[in-house]
Amino acid sequence: MSKDNLLNLLEAEAGKYVSGEEISQKLQVSRTAVWKKIRKLTSEGYIIEAVPRLGYRLSGKPSHLSVHELLPKLNTKSFGRALHLLDVVPSTQDEVRRLADQGAAEGTLVIAEQQTKGRGRMGRSWASPKGKGIWMSLLLRPPVPLPLTPQLTLLAAVALSRGISRLVPITIGIKWPNDLLVNGKKISGILLESAAEDERLRYVIVGMGISVNLDPEDYPEELLEKAISLKMASGAVIDRSELIAVILEEFERLYALYLEQGFAPIRSLWEAHSVTLNNHTVLNTPQGQVQGIPRELDDMGGLRIELEDGSFKTIYSAVIDS
Amino acid sequence: MSKDNLLNLLEAEAGKYVSGEEISQKLQVSRTAVWKKIRKLTSEGYIIEAVPRLGYRLSGKPSHLSVHELLPKLNTKSFGRALHLLDVVPSTQDEVRRLADQGAAEGTLVIAEQQTKGRGRMGRSWASPKGKGIWMSLLLRPPVPLPLTPQLTLLAAVALSRGISRLVPITIGIKWPNDLLVNGKKISGILLESAAEDERLRYVIVGMGISVNLDPEDYPEELLEKAISLKMASGAVIDRSELIAVILEEFERLYALYLEQGFAPIRSLWEAHSVTLNNHTVLNTPQGQVQGIPRELDDMGGLRIELEDGSFKTIYSAVIDS
Repeated sequence: MSKDNLLNLLEAEAGKYVSGEEISQKLQVSRTAVWKKIRKLTSEGYIIEAVPRLGYRLSGKPSHLSVHELLPKLNTKSFGRALHLLDVVPSTQDEVRRLADQGAAEGTLVIAEQQTKGRGRMGRSWASPKGKGIWMSLLLRPPVPLPLTPQLTLLAAVALSRGISRLVPITIGIKWPNDLLVNGKKISGILLESAAEDERLRYVIVGMGISVNLDPEDYPEELLEKAISLKMASGAVIDRSELIAVILEEFERLYALYLEQGFAPIRSLWEAHSVTLNNHTVLNTPQGQVQGIPRELDDMGGLRIELEDGSFKTIYSAVIDS
Repeated sequence: MSKDNLLNLLEAEAGKYVSGEEISQKLQVSRTAVWKKIRKLTSEGYIIEAVPRLGYRLSGKPSHLSVHELLPKLNTKSFGRALHLLDVVPSTQDEVRRLADQGAAEGTLVIAEQQTKGRGRMGRSWASPKGKGIWMSLLLRPPVPLPLTPQLTLLAAVALSRGISRLVPITIGIKWPNDLLVNGKKISGILLESAAEDERLRYVIVGMGISVNLDPEDYPEELLEKAISLKMASGAVIDRSELIAVILEEFERLYALYLEQGFAPIRSLWEAHSVTLNNHTVLNTPQGQVQGIPRELDDMGGLRIELEDGSFKTIYSAVIDS
């Protein structure tokens, strides 16, 4: 049985329930095989209700992003105006890097329905199933010196957090430097790639992965304790186009504010959203473990940790466990 | 007349002088044409003495770097141990970037006899004629966070300056951040390219261009006021292999010191070699012009400028004219 036969059968019933028994007979396969194929379809973005005694009902198809749908929603000057919407791509970061090296303009955006080699922080892989998340990379050419790049990492976290909150009624906390959490579980990862010549930034690529409409079965079991989607957190399916539009709008607004007024306003916003500050934290840095209580950001975007002896240490690079 | 005919003629005379008159007659060309071809040969690295009444004498041929000659001189653990010696290449930086993306080890070095697209700071082109200079790029994978990259820029300047001084008896001053000057004229340019993911440096490529045995005629006229070669400054032809070896040795030693003890010792050495400190300076930054007296480096590697009102401003990215 191909899953397409199952899909045809469910579609033919136009929104009515079809029992597992009936499917099993019509397609001449076991009940277990039916259940497996149903699971495969839901993992691809089909919404199939399963009700005991009634059976299965197709109530939604995978949504596909389209440029025609997205562009009219954009309320930005440059962010997302050069838009590359791709189906499957190894990594949206690599795609933007290629465009950047060819001279692409600030605001250039690559969105993919699916990534086959999506990367997270520290080279970790990142689940990006088709049609259910937002996997996108934005090109910036900020006229700021290289040492201030951490400020952009923090800015991206604030932009994403505030953008999402405009559309989805959930409380988002930022774990230093840029993980977004809901009830302690990760909903989004951000990865900034930067290229510089001496102290001059050539470009920064902001990679954003947002778990939008993923269902629990889309996650490997060991991740379910640590990760959650916006749909799982809010109980509602989110329109990805609208979400992309509000995120880009918020990002462009904060970026302009940053270029005009510097880091101070971004720093205040980040600190207000942070779940890292004022909690005892263990930080694994390239130079070894640091324990203490993060108290604030410094002017450069580093994290100021109060150590046990009352002295302060500023950290720019670390992994925080848990 | 091809210049090879001229070369054959000079070589046939084996170190004796040949008058311009004689060359002109034998090759059946004008005296002006002879002079032009002589100039072309010297620009390729041939050393031709021209003495009034006596004529021209071939006293040296272009030197070619060879791995067999260079490797035994290297007194390093990793710097230059993976060595790629190329004849002509668009840019040694691009070559190392390609190797870095393929996972090349720290210390990997690319040297080219000639670059066709050598780049300097701010995308400026850089004269790199064949066989007369050192154009090389070194791969580093420093376990330091991104904001500290300016320290590596300063470290490179100190390493190059001290390496050269071990072989050539000249006084070198460092113009912030990393130009090397002799009597106010530039002998070397350094360009650091860095690639990072978030605050973690993936790699740094240190591009070094050193004007070793260039003659005045190798420079465009407008550059002669601003640039000078080691040969022009010291009066002696420098062995390029030996120079590469001492620079790599010095660089590796200072890099190890930096990783072990941090920026403090590098900072002291840089400040001791600096010609920028304590002189009134105009700095063109991305945010506009800053005027003042640079007083010291800060802990991150930024330049602390004393402004007219006595307050201090730290600069990370700027171009200093003159």
